[in-house]
Amino acid sequence: MTEPNFRTLTRADVAHDALKTEAEAWFVHLRDQICAAFEALEDEAAARDLPHLPGSTAAGRFERTAWSREAQAWEPPGSSHGGGVMSVMRGRVFEKVGVNVSTVWGTFSPEFRTQIDGAQEDPRFFATGISLVAHPANPHVCAAHFNTRLIVTTKGWFGGGGDITPMFPQSAEAQEDAAAFHAAFARACDAHDPGYYPEFKEWCDRYFFLPHRNEPRGLGGIFFDRFHRGAVEDDFRFVQDVGRAFLEAYPPVVRARMSTPWTDAERDAQRVRRGRYVEFNLLHDRGTTFGLKTGGHVDAILMSMPPDVKWP
Amino acid sequence: MTEPNFRTLTRADVAHDALKTEAEAWFVHLRDQICAAFEALEDEAAARDLPHLPGSTAAGRFERTAWSREAQAWEPPGSSHGGGVMSVMRGRVFEKVGVNVSTVWGTFSPEFRTQIDGAQEDPRFFATGISLVAHPANPHVCAAHFNTRLIVTTKGWFGGGGDITPMFPQSAEAQEDAAAFHAAFARACDAHDPGYYPEFKEWCDRYFFLPHRNEPRGLGGIFFDRFHRGAVEDDFRFVQDVGRAFLEAYPPVVRARMSTPWTDAERDAQRVRRGRYVEFNLLHDRGTTFGLKTGGHVDAILMSMPPDVKWP
Repeated sequence: MTEPNFRTLTRADVAHDALKTEAEAWFVHLRDQICAAFEALEDEAAARDLPHLPGSTAAGRFERTAWSREAQAWEPPGSSHGGGVMSVMRGRVFEKVGVNVSTVWGTFSPEFRTQIDGAQEDPRFFATGISLVAHPANPHVCAAHFNTRLIVTTKGWFGGGGDITPMFPQSAEAQEDAAAFHAAFARACDAHDPGYYPEFKEWCDRYFFLPHRNEPRGLGGIFFDRFHRGAVEDDFRFVQDVGRAFLEAYPPVVRARMSTPWTDAERDAQRVRRGRYVEFNLLHDRGTTFGLKTGGHVDAILMSMPPDVKWP
Repeated sequence: MTEPNFRTLTRADVAHDALKTEAEAWFVHLRDQICAAFEALEDEAAARDLPHLPGSTAAGRFERTAWSREAQAWEPPGSSHGGGVMSVMRGRVFEKVGVNVSTVWGTFSPEFRTQIDGAQEDPRFFATGISLVAHPANPHVCAAHFNTRLIVTTKGWFGGGGDITPMFPQSAEAQEDAAAFHAAFARACDAHDPGYYPEFKEWCDRYFFLPHRNEPRGLGGIFFDRFHRGAVEDDFRFVQDVGRAFLEAYPPVVRARMSTPWTDAERDAQRVRRGRYVEFNLLHDRGTTFGLKTGGHVDAILMSMPPDVKWP
């Protein structure tokens, strides 16, 4: 698949429509590539009859659902505010994986605008992004999250990252998977600035942490926000490279473990660990809060919830 | 079982130790009565070999675990801060039910003290209470929550309530169960003030509501907070009567439905509805936040999480 020819943008574009359009087009293009790669894994698992949950013998396929952002109480009714497309696959490799793209605009609520950079002076915002959460069926396959986004208020910045959540983080296989995942992001970062990977890795460790349990969510990755470091065209290229790094890194991690048999006890442990994922996303995740407070689509926001969870 | 002879308290007691001691003793006594009633239901179901989940054939019994509240970063280390006892039963009627009692004291964090009545002048607090969440195995048996508590800062008040969460809230059986549950609370309220039930029922409907889904958590009950309406001895008697009302109302609701057979589709629907319970507790519940922000025991706070949940 060839990529669209993204033109070079200037810093002034942050305030204009060109960057918004280009970023949205990139996120949609990346979504298509990721979905194709995940469906290819489903085909491979079905062809080889790899281990799977009872009932899920067919190769999974993504189903797409579009949604529109509705005008909120403090916004003029009837006006257009964008929306998004959810792509959800329930397959035999991926018990549940969602890849959302959305492009929304409007006005932050009076309460929320004080919390967002550049929104005090003018509460209007634009946001476009891609967000992905994968919950594999096989407990030996790491769950993963990836997201990149462009936010524009009176200021503009990118944010995003990716992190990996093994079900058995102490195991040698998890350490190996995490090392490969980190290496791909490190290469993407280093190509732009040698300081990015150490900074964004540490940020990820700090962010994906459950203070109420004093434990990390998984084995990390990278996380960055309010990112506007250089010329905007360089920022955008970095964000694209982060997306390519995820696409390069995660499918091999899935492929390497998807043929490993598992026990009932391992499945149980997976369901308990998924509970931690739920706790993090509902108690701490700013993306979830952002979505729920800005009129996002609840099914798209909570698409990240694992399919089958246990609190013993 | 006879109740301890609770003496009459005066309003001045709110600021002193007597009310704290009496309230704690009541909550422990009520816990014992509730646990005995729930274990009796387990015995009955086992004797009659009523429907149950695979594996859970024995009559359930509560297991108790004590915990101590640790000094928080802003509190003097090594000092005593109370604690609690979790009672958890995993049985054949109750897939998971937790009944916590706790009595804790200390200092609110600088961030949290601004949010609590009477804590601005002096951030020290005392809290004692009982908290219960029941997740029955049978989808035809309503889940239930009950809680009463005494909070003392420079002010003092009771809070609490109980609410019922049927898995099929539109069904005739759910409506009937909810009516019986409400009737018991209404009787308890009316004995103290004819205004209490309408006020606290409405407060419950408002509180146990998921704004992000625009749907109620269940079929309500009563909810009250910052309750200090009359002489403190009357307030306390009201709180005791609310506890007795729960003990009177909920076991019959369980008994009436625990012999109803269920289908896989009903079990699935139950697991999805439990996901809403998780969303409410982690996104919106102030009790959860209070516990997590005041050094509560995480296992006790999150004991409310359902045992087996699905987000399709």
